[in-house]
Amino acid sequence: MAEAWLIAPAASIISILIGLFLFKYVNDKDAGTDRMKQIAGWIREGSRSFLKTEYTYLGVFVVVMAVILSAALSLKIGVTYVFGTLLSGLAGIIGMEIAVKANVRTANAAKKGGLTEAFPIAFRGGAVMGLMVVGLALFGVSLIYWLTKDPEIVLGMSIGASTLTLFMKAGGGIYTKTADIAADLVGKVELSIPEDDPRNPAVIADNVGDNVGDCAGSGADLFDSYVAAIMAAMILGGTLPIQYLEAVPLVYAGLGILASILGIAIVRVGKDGDPGKALNMGTYATTLAFAVLTYGATIILGYDVKIWYCNIAGLAAGTVIGLTSDYYTSINRSPAKKTAESSQTGAAITILTGFSYGLISCFPAFLGIGIGSAIAFTLYAAVGMLSIAGIIIAGDAYGPIGDNSKGIAEMSELGEDVVDITDEIDAAGNTTKAITKGFAIGAAGLTALALLASYQEIVKRIVGTTVVFDLMDPMVMMGVFIGMSVPVIFSAMIILAVSKNAYRMIEEIRRQFREIPGLMEGTGTPEYNKCVNIATKGALTELLPLIVFSIMGTIVLGFVAGIKALAGYLSGAIFSGFFLAILMANAGGLWDNAKKYVESGFFGGKGSDAHKAAVIGDTVGDPFKDTAGPSLNTLVTVISQIASLFAPLFIAYALIGV
Amino acid sequence: MAEAWLIAPAASIISILIGLFLFKYVNDKDAGTDRMKQIAGWIREGSRSFLKTEYTYLGVFVVVMAVILSAALSLKIGVTYVFGTLLSGLAGIIGMEIAVKANVRTANAAKKGGLTEAFPIAFRGGAVMGLMVVGLALFGVSLIYWLTKDPEIVLGMSIGASTLTLFMKAGGGIYTKTADIAADLVGKVELSIPEDDPRNPAVIADNVGDNVGDCAGSGADLFDSYVAAIMAAMILGGTLPIQYLEAVPLVYAGLGILASILGIAIVRVGKDGDPGKALNMGTYATTLAFAVLTYGATIILGYDVKIWYCNIAGLAAGTVIGLTSDYYTSINRSPAKKTAESSQTGAAITILTGFSYGLISCFPAFLGIGIGSAIAFTLYAAVGMLSIAGIIIAGDAYGPIGDNSKGIAEMSELGEDVVDITDEIDAAGNTTKAITKGFAIGAAGLTALALLASYQEIVKRIVGTTVVFDLMDPMVMMGVFIGMSVPVIFSAMIILAVSKNAYRMIEEIRRQFREIPGLMEGTGTPEYNKCVNIATKGALTELLPLIVFSIMGTIVLGFVAGIKALAGYLSGAIFSGFFLAILMANAGGLWDNAKKYVESGFFGGKGSDAHKAAVIGDTVGDPFKDTAGPSLNTLVTVISQIASLFAPLFIAYALIGV
Repeated sequence: MAEAWLIAPAASIISILIGLFLFKYVNDKDAGTDRMKQIAGWIREGSRSFLKTEYTYLGVFVVVMAVILSAALSLKIGVTYVFGTLLSGLAGIIGMEIAVKANVRTANAAKKGGLTEAFPIAFRGGAVMGLMVVGLALFGVSLIYWLTKDPEIVLGMSIGASTLTLFMKAGGGIYTKTADIAADLVGKVELSIPEDDPRNPAVIADNVGDNVGDCAGSGADLFDSYVAAIMAAMILGGTLPIQYLEAVPLVYAGLGILASILGIAIVRVGKDGDPGKALNMGTYATTLAFAVLTYGATIILGYDVKIWYCNIAGLAAGTVIGLTSDYYTSINRSPAKKTAESSQTGAAITILTGFSYGLISCFPAFLGIGIGSAIAFTLYAAVGMLSIAGIIIAGDAYGPIGDNSKGIAEMSELGEDVVDITDEIDAAGNTTKAITKGFAIGAAGLTALALLASYQEIVKRIVGTTVVFDLMDPMVMMGVFIGMSVPVIFSAMIILAVSKNAYRMIEEIRRQFREIPGLMEGTGTPEYNKCVNIATKGALTELLPLIVFSIMGTIVLGFVAGIKALAGYLSGAIFSGFFLAILMANAGGLWDNAKKYVESGFFGGKGSDAHKAAVIGDTVGDPFKDTAGPSLNTLVTVISQIASLFAPLFIAYALIGV
Repeated sequence: MAEAWLIAPAASIISILIGLFLFKYVNDKDAGTDRMKQIAGWIREGSRSFLKTEYTYLGVFVVVMAVILSAALSLKIGVTYVFGTLLSGLAGIIGMEIAVKANVRTANAAKKGGLTEAFPIAFRGGAVMGLMVVGLALFGVSLIYWLTKDPEIVLGMSIGASTLTLFMKAGGGIYTKTADIAADLVGKVELSIPEDDPRNPAVIADNVGDNVGDCAGSGADLFDSYVAAIMAAMILGGTLPIQYLEAVPLVYAGLGILASILGIAIVRVGKDGDPGKALNMGTYATTLAFAVLTYGATIILGYDVKIWYCNIAGLAAGTVIGLTSDYYTSINRSPAKKTAESSQTGAAITILTGFSYGLISCFPAFLGIGIGSAIAFTLYAAVGMLSIAGIIIAGDAYGPIGDNSKGIAEMSELGEDVVDITDEIDAAGNTTKAITKGFAIGAAGLTALALLASYQEIVKRIVGTTVVFDLMDPMVMMGVFIGMSVPVIFSAMIILAVSKNAYRMIEEIRRQFREIPGLMEGTGTPEYNKCVNIATKGALTELLPLIVFSIMGTIVLGFVAGIKALAGYLSGAIFSGFFLAILMANAGGLWDNAKKYVESGFFGGKGSDAHKAAVIGDTVGDPFKDTAGPSLNTLVTVISQIASLFAPLFIAYALIGV
């Protein structure tokens, strides 16, 4: 059936409508006392101010890129590029807006009706983000496909989404860890005041960071992988013999949205229920529903059943990587406990132990990606993992809402009981976060491999014959080594950016405690906005040259060394990028939970030497897991797409190489 | 000239003779007072005891391997395998014996005649190691080539050397860092007694560690890369059209030895001279002499001058990597200073900053290796870097002699002036060490690439046609990801082994201070041998399963997934192995010098909070730079050669794949 792909726009519109409905549901809830509204207002204003500044920077960047793309390639690409950035940006705004509404309403509901009333608000807030992201993304892809029937034009939209994502993910990551580290180092360590204490000038920036980094950033991240995977699968699918096969990714993605809606609908928690279990149940139900729906569609539409197997292989690889991340980071498992135990011998051993387990945790992920790419057509595998993005993003966006609601409950002094409930909601977010993060990295890894394959496909269409990327070709090998350095340098620079920026904010916090009378005693008012401004400005100014450098580096290599070297370069970037992403995410999560394990009373508990060592581990892990690690996926996606876009020019004008 | 290759055995015999002569020169010097002899005796006995235990383990391992190789492949391979282990083992023994003689004699000469008398003893002690290693290695290769004229049989000897090296390098690395970390954590941190204080029960183990890790281990490391590079170049050279081309690597290597002897001869230092400059002068002279000699030989013997260019490209790549390591680790450069400065904000920022600079330092190395492999035939490039191994090893082995002499001077209370002189000798060792380490890693990287090419060549000879290792082949791509995990897991396990073993030794040191009466007051005698035994036993028992696992993993993958997957696997191991080796060596060296920078009086100096943070960085860096990092080269060399050796069996019996 030639019209089967229409399931994609249909599902995407349903997704957007349900998203808007849930938005209204959350918005209609009571936002609580004046004090709560005041605090939530600070967070909202901080988040909006960050997004506004970021979008201003981005506006300039997008215009410059659009002009370059239109001039160098075609106006169509330039226009779809802008379209992609607009959709991705819109998804970010909606996700952020719902998050800053849901946080305070969750806290208020916890006060009024306990867990059963609070949990749905937090989760549905997250679901708004999930549904809007996949809805807008698939709607955009469908629209362009309908207008042009050319998957390569979708590439323009995809790269628009990716460049925006890189800013939101990496910029948000720098922001959130700047605030987190600075708030902790001065507040907890130097002054011994609790986390989320309103006297700390960085506390609002810290809560804003949760929104801009975890919520808007993660949503944009999966938006980007999602679009890129569908696009790559369409480009590759178009070359297979069966007619209309390039529509398969659209059909599967549409069914994935329906499965996600089903999964979101069944997530509920009873009076003494476990929010973590409820979230996981939603994910499992979605996965199962997706498998059943796509099998049915494959049979009914007469697709090769091998495609369905690949789809399932991708899903399985994603699950393996997610579960591995869970094992290596969970507070209840041996790696975190052993890392906590090793803290008794000092911080150096904490670092070494956590780093080692982080390295070991890469093995199942490598195996999963390796076998996944071997048994699948790669392309469909990636779509398989990403089709259930709706529920994954919902779980991801739930995290910062829960985290914020706890912060608001504490700052508004809603009492021990309420804080405990929000704490439970927050803790469930941490559990699912490890799994969804692993899933996102795995999906991005397979997407990058699919992008590599689509790069080869595009080169083939231009040259007229398959160009082999032989590992023993000196140009390819050289490309691999140069490509490996891109994620490596990017990680380094972005971690240094966090250090530098945190240093600036620490100076500011110290200044405020020194100069504002009565701040420590609780009678003075901290200047929250100064910290917010430092985090915002630093994040964006540190980031811009890095992104420009990555894109320019790719283009320069292509023009100098040609398409074979570039294929090696993309592969090298995938290798080191995937490795560092997994290592940093898992080691970071592990140190975090090792610290929590010590705090729960083991090895001397809070305030002991072991705790101090564990805190150092956690601080090292912060930019690993929340800044550098999660940005790498997007970085690799961006440069892969740049390579594909510019391939015709490299072939025509490269200095050396074929 | 068909007999040109005879320059190799001739040069190797000259090298061995000069080595023996220098051995006698050092041995004839006075070993000083009874107290000095007693301390040197403890170190000597500890070193011998480690080597004895290690060789006992190794004996069993070698016999098992020889039986397997003889049965699975051929008796010839089995015999040359044993021959390789014997030569490498002999080089280790000689290097160790001269180190434990030169250390005390250097200290004594410093007391008697100052720097001008002490320096030549330390340097010539190192030169013994350098000359014996290259002499024995090239003699062995020449002998086998003379007997068989078949470079593939040399592979047997090469892998014999490599497996032994892996034990010596990694085992010595675990040993030295176990002792170092344990001695520091209890001695310096808990009890506030100085380094090298004879009351510390781990102090002898610490000094032994310098010998077994740095001296015997590093010598074996370059022995192994040296043989492997010559062997790989011979296998590849044999396929080129020009007759006798497989002898080129032998000719170049022979000339390299002569150049090294020249360089060693001119190293001297005046009364107020700078030992560091003298050492570097020797290296530069050797490099220049080597370039001139090989150019002459290339012209006279009528070789293609392109080979000479490749040779020089390899030398240039090695120099770039060495100088990069120097820049990123030197105490006088911005990375170490900035890391020291960041220590003021706490240990977490020290770790993050040093780690980031370590990542950045990979870029020039990647670029060097990438461009080096692209412009050279790879094979000859590797020989180019390694031909001057003689002087490189001499500089490397000089390090622990200087370090030990300082320890002996302190423990024997030879006075401030003498300690200062030995300190100067020691410091020069640290400067050259960064360069030689970078050089060794670069050489190993190019060697591994040459081994990959020789693997393809061997496969081609069996199959009869060139098998392309296409990156887009799912088996190759799967192989890359699985191969990447080998160095990753190996690093993790070996770091965990150091942590575990250090923990055991810490318990023992604490026990001795608790139970031995008068130990802290200086009237009791510590049981040094107990610490030596813990370090020895732990190092070997932790290591054996790791090595067996790496070898077995390679063989299993070959039999299951076939030669294409294995090519990907080897490439993946090179990618992650080279990356981690550079990262760990440079980050480790950087943290070390950042600590020294703080100790020299900046940011509060010794005892300040910044110093405590910098010490944590240094401790994290210890197993990075001295255990995991340096073992990875050898690991990759071992599995590459295993793959080549077993290639015929994989082709015949693999389950899947071609």
